[in-house]
Amino acid sequence: MESVFQIFKKIPACRQAGKNSKARKSRLKTAHGKVNLPNFMPIATRAAVKNLTSDELKEIGAEIILSNTYHLFLRPGVEIIKGAGGLHQFMNWPGPILTDSGGYQVFSLAKWRKIKKEGVEFSSEIDGQKFLLTPEKAIEIQKDLGADIMICLDVCPAGQESYEEIKKAADITFAWAKRAKKVFARNESLPESRRSAFGGKKQLLFGIVQGGIYPDLREKSAREITSLSFDGYALGGFFVGEEEKNSWPVIRKTISFLPSDKPRYLMGAGRPEQIVKAVKLGIDLFDCVIPTRNARHGLVYVNTKSQITNYKLQTNSKSQIPNKFYEEIHIANSKYTKDFSPVDKNCSCFTCQNFSRVYLRHLYLTKEPLALRLLTIHNLYFYLSLMKRIRENIELGNL
Amino acid sequence: MESVFQIFKKIPACRQAGKNSKARKSRLKTAHGKVNLPNFMPIATRAAVKNLTSDELKEIGAEIILSNTYHLFLRPGVEIIKGAGGLHQFMNWPGPILTDSGGYQVFSLAKWRKIKKEGVEFSSEIDGQKFLLTPEKAIEIQKDLGADIMICLDVCPAGQESYEEIKKAADITFAWAKRAKKVFARNESLPESRRSAFGGKKQLLFGIVQGGIYPDLREKSAREITSLSFDGYALGGFFVGEEEKNSWPVIRKTISFLPSDKPRYLMGAGRPEQIVKAVKLGIDLFDCVIPTRNARHGLVYVNTKSQITNYKLQTNSKSQIPNKFYEEIHIANSKYTKDFSPVDKNCSCFTCQNFSRVYLRHLYLTKEPLALRLLTIHNLYFYLSLMKRIRENIELGNL
Repeated sequence: MESVFQIFKKIPACRQAGKNSKARKSRLKTAHGKVNLPNFMPIATRAAVKNLTSDELKEIGAEIILSNTYHLFLRPGVEIIKGAGGLHQFMNWPGPILTDSGGYQVFSLAKWRKIKKEGVEFSSEIDGQKFLLTPEKAIEIQKDLGADIMICLDVCPAGQESYEEIKKAADITFAWAKRAKKVFARNESLPESRRSAFGGKKQLLFGIVQGGIYPDLREKSAREITSLSFDGYALGGFFVGEEEKNSWPVIRKTISFLPSDKPRYLMGAGRPEQIVKAVKLGIDLFDCVIPTRNARHGLVYVNTKSQITNYKLQTNSKSQIPNKFYEEIHIANSKYTKDFSPVDKNCSCFTCQNFSRVYLRHLYLTKEPLALRLLTIHNLYFYLSLMKRIRENIELGNL
Repeated sequence: MESVFQIFKKIPACRQAGKNSKARKSRLKTAHGKVNLPNFMPIATRAAVKNLTSDELKEIGAEIILSNTYHLFLRPGVEIIKGAGGLHQFMNWPGPILTDSGGYQVFSLAKWRKIKKEGVEFSSEIDGQKFLLTPEKAIEIQKDLGADIMICLDVCPAGQESYEEIKKAADITFAWAKRAKKVFARNESLPESRRSAFGGKKQLLFGIVQGGIYPDLREKSAREITSLSFDGYALGGFFVGEEEKNSWPVIRKTISFLPSDKPRYLMGAGRPEQIVKAVKLGIDLFDCVIPTRNARHGLVYVNTKSQITNYKLQTNSKSQIPNKFYEEIHIANSKYTKDFSPVDKNCSCFTCQNFSRVYLRHLYLTKEPLALRLLTIHNLYFYLSLMKRIRENIELGNL
């Protein structure tokens, strides 16, 4: 039998640009198709990537998307999505979907929350209704949504929290991970016809490592979580308010405690250069609101290399931050008043193939809703092309 | 040489459903292609139909769109659109475009306006800047936009205005029409290379008949305007606040003074049943914000006939209003909470082929911008399919 996770290429250590690189090219098999890694997941918070249809996502090159359990649980509710035949059918997206556990949003969005041993109690920011989310319930919901990849419920404290708080969060995360794994394993051991997941399809479950910027806590958390043998590992609690320079050494350290034969997902990252950097540390999967949110604020990416084929991801040996291979421009800038060229003349996205900066600027300034769609298409295309180029560069041994 | 306007079919007077019908099927040739009439123009106010790309418009079946001179004049300004190569290039719509004169918006939107003999002075509602729009200037702007069909500047009073006011408006409209025709004719008589219109392409100019709900004023205006021999005639000043029942006899009367060998355009109309009624009176061209605005408010159309092939436009002999051949439903209605069927199970639009009522309801209620696009696609498809069915029914002698 073909294994779920296959690594095709690890960077040879001797390559010029790849010194110390842990970048790897791999493929993850899910119930709704294979995903080439490293890859980036556009975020379909409420069963839609803002402004885009599934057809457009496919055209842009998206292979896997992320949807938010917390939002879907509150609206329209799991029963409705289950009734529609699961999330894939509901939103008409045929490819793989990863759902988060809902934990992160309970901590960042809910009006009020209280962590208990059994789970987290919270009241919805929409109507104040109270709910209890347990690790078991988080699995049940994600099963009903029909997610290809599910995530264990965790406690994700803010980056500035004390050592004590972050230690406590990691301990609860481990306790909850054990319970999540138990209900997951019970269901997976059933014959297909009796599995509760939609259509009986095989689902994957990722554990989350916590521990903030404290290497000892990360090591402990990584050892504990990996002892439960999940299908993949998510690194939670990074880029949540801590100083970025403190995160990178800890990300590197955390990865060293993860098995190399399982995919690694750096939650919530990141800017293009952060993604490149994380890939070099051995990360396989990413999600971030940045490209879509930036688009809605008129910020778009422009490649600074004229030839995509010449594109190299280089590192500044001192800071380990790659040279900027792109610019961010604001489409409303008055210097584009008479700029009839596309956002990026080397870009093959629908927006750049059909519309000029001056037209997009006009739509954006007059608040035409089409502006946000066209800019979103471009930014996601930029991200997904970046992932493709990253994979190509790993293949060539250049990363 | 093939004539610009060709009538293919007039309803034989003896047909059962077509008694007294003046419906006709025809074709109008423009610089950017032919338009089958009767037809409906989606409104691309600011060089974009709200939420849609030109590709989607084509897919929906749009043959011609309308763009608003007033809005484009203020933002982004005519120079920019001219610089882009004209409106077609600017917004990437290859088909015919009709632009209005800007007059209607000056009267309905501008912060302040004053009608003078030479034109109308107004101050922009955006920044208060003052402008003078003359009949000559309106032609120049529309030439620079590269419109396929241009409209003469008119004065369009509200429907409740006094006979005196409406008479005055019609008189000014005639005086301005003469001046518009003059600059238009001067340009058209030049060899292609010296014409100011973009690319030297042949543009068409429609005159506007005014006169409110007063048959004598309509007759006078129609006789005056048609004496100038335009490429087509627009009926302005209907559905602008007057009682609808007072309009229909006057529309019928006005049409009787228009030449049958020129297209007729009923500005700003209307609801689906108004369109059917107007076609039967001999109208060829329509525009209206209703389908797109309704979509943005969650109101969508559903055909009430299960078989489109059985579809007949019938009239109630008393009121001359066709039986309702559709329903309007509100997608947010709680009765669609578990309705997994499409908006209209007999509809072939992208939205109905791919998404359920419950999904659209969810998107609409959670304010996902995709909702407005998908509902707009459906409503415009409904309108443009209606126009197609109208043409088919004229062909069959059923209208």
